[in-house]
Amino acid sequence: MKFNPVIEHLKTYEPGKPIELVVREFGIDPSDIIKLASNENPYGCSPQAIRAVEDSAGLMFRYPDDTMMDLKAALAARFDVDESNLVIGAGSDQVIELACRAKLYGGAKILQSEITFAMYQIYAAQCGAGIIKAPGVAHDLDAMYALYKEHKPEIVFVCAPNNPTGDCLDRIDIENFIDAIDRDTLVVLDGAYQEYASYKNPAKKVDPAALIARFPHVLYLGTFSKAYGLGGMRIGYGIASEEIVKGLYKLRPPFNVTTLSLVAATEALKDEAFVQNTLQNCFEQMEAYESFAEKNGIGFIESYTNFITYLLDGVADSGELADALLRRGIIVRDLKGYGINAIRITIGKPEENSRFFEAMQQLLDSGEK
Amino acid sequence: MKFNPVIEHLKTYEPGKPIELVVREFGIDPSDIIKLASNENPYGCSPQAIRAVEDSAGLMFRYPDDTMMDLKAALAARFDVDESNLVIGAGSDQVIELACRAKLYGGAKILQSEITFAMYQIYAAQCGAGIIKAPGVAHDLDAMYALYKEHKPEIVFVCAPNNPTGDCLDRIDIENFIDAIDRDTLVVLDGAYQEYASYKNPAKKVDPAALIARFPHVLYLGTFSKAYGLGGMRIGYGIASEEIVKGLYKLRPPFNVTTLSLVAATEALKDEAFVQNTLQNCFEQMEAYESFAEKNGIGFIESYTNFITYLLDGVADSGELADALLRRGIIVRDLKGYGINAIRITIGKPEENSRFFEAMQQLLDSGEK
Repeated sequence: MKFNPVIEHLKTYEPGKPIELVVREFGIDPSDIIKLASNENPYGCSPQAIRAVEDSAGLMFRYPDDTMMDLKAALAARFDVDESNLVIGAGSDQVIELACRAKLYGGAKILQSEITFAMYQIYAAQCGAGIIKAPGVAHDLDAMYALYKEHKPEIVFVCAPNNPTGDCLDRIDIENFIDAIDRDTLVVLDGAYQEYASYKNPAKKVDPAALIARFPHVLYLGTFSKAYGLGGMRIGYGIASEEIVKGLYKLRPPFNVTTLSLVAATEALKDEAFVQNTLQNCFEQMEAYESFAEKNGIGFIESYTNFITYLLDGVADSGELADALLRRGIIVRDLKGYGINAIRITIGKPEENSRFFEAMQQLLDSGEK
Repeated sequence: MKFNPVIEHLKTYEPGKPIELVVREFGIDPSDIIKLASNENPYGCSPQAIRAVEDSAGLMFRYPDDTMMDLKAALAARFDVDESNLVIGAGSDQVIELACRAKLYGGAKILQSEITFAMYQIYAAQCGAGIIKAPGVAHDLDAMYALYKEHKPEIVFVCAPNNPTGDCLDRIDIENFIDAIDRDTLVVLDGAYQEYASYKNPAKKVDPAALIARFPHVLYLGTFSKAYGLGGMRIGYGIASEEIVKGLYKLRPPFNVTTLSLVAATEALKDEAFVQNTLQNCFEQMEAYESFAEKNGIGFIESYTNFITYLLDGVADSGELADALLRRGIIVRDLKGYGINAIRITIGKPEENSRFFEAMQQLLDSGEK
């Protein structure tokens, strides 16, 4: 059967290995496995959200409220924007997909940093778009601007903080960059980890309301998957001018988030204490990861997220190290596929982090990596 | 901002009005509203599925198992197919979307019956495809075949039983039709209501395993939204040759169904007693709808689903009638948008159906419609 020729060359996203797969492949007891691979919240999600979902399980037979009025009202209040500035997706992933399909057609291009969230180029390639990458491990805004002028892409992606490296641009630099981009180019500012960056350093904090008031061509992305601990519920959002939201809405599938995802997200937004606790624990534990790296001569990138990237040149091969950890029941993310010899480790609970340090120390000492 | 020109002309799907909206618009107490508009299962879903979701609510922070191994194993066993013949979507809706995006590009066309599930043409139009419609309220396979020969569309949609009319082709006629279609044309056979049709009349029962063994160009669709009562959890599936599944997988977004949707669907599949009870109650109550129509001179289409379509020519205007029912807290679906003067009513619980009959009788007697 003949398909659209663009799909022939598509790469598919390789998600972090689920615990179920490690159980099956290595025969390790599930309780002995720790997963530090997908930047999930090690503290789970708000207990209020869990209770609300338990109480609503009997409503699974009802289609979701497709106007999403409760969640939109809560998000609008949180960000001080109008509900017409909001589009809710099955993860912010889906908002990326909608943006690509709305803007990319007939020889379009996107611009992104070389090492950034993999889904930008995956969704863009599905639309047959060309992918322009600014070199470097971190976002190099000067290089990006030069490539922007040269190629005039339809979408520019900026990820702040950046996944999978953890570094973060300053708000002022992001705004100056966006300001220099033509108003017909869509700038997608992915703030999936903004809660973390804002907590660590106010200079990183982006204000979506101020952003969309100033820029009609920006689409800010947020998610419930990280600080709110709802990665399994597939719910995120875009904040943009009404014009952009209307464009994306034309392509949004009806009922694109589940009944229970709406309940969980709405409730999670009310529990700010849970998020604050998450952020505090994350950066306390981050220090242990930095100390461990320094003690062992491992380079790392200063992180504004819930993960840390260890740079392994001169220390180990990232693929071999990730495999050796996996055989010990510890799942981390090998970044070789992104073109760097590095692993990305989600900051876990103290006991999970201790097990990681112990296993890493053994591997480093034994020379088995 | 300039978008892909195809999106300018897109219509968006109008879902059944959610209870929340009726509460807001008409100020009716939620407990006084009955929703017979979206073909939800009035008996909810399996209590086992509810318990499993309650027990798993603490896992919302984990990304879904993207291999979906438990659900795939259960579906493969249920249908006697290989797991490589399965693609799971956020509702069978998403499988339709993937099929459109995989097959429709550069002036492609689809063929469908005139009055059928609205999402076929919505997703096709998003891909810029032309929409060919065979006239008639029911699927007219001869007319469809003539149009197929004339237009050579890339996808042919067959909905059996058909939504929103409720009628159903016989299996043998469907198979003969598929057999006459070239092997490079994808035939999507939408079996969202097959559980109902199979229960009522074995001649309607399609066997996906036999179908894909014989036809490399067919994509069978099933869903957990109807007989399994999980409409809110957005989970359905496609069954097809490995070649087709691989093509669709290239466009499938990772983590496209939620952690709790996988739990609910896997558990729901184990509770066949719930489904049998659903089907038995549905067709028992259907008789009351048929009697009511006959008594009041209302035409109806014999239904193989969990809804019935009342044909209102000479009786009422469907829009006015649906509005009058809405003001009485009863939500049904006006089919005027599909080009017929008819309403579609989901078969509810006995007490819901009684309220519908009572309100309808009042409206018919008073002449207010």
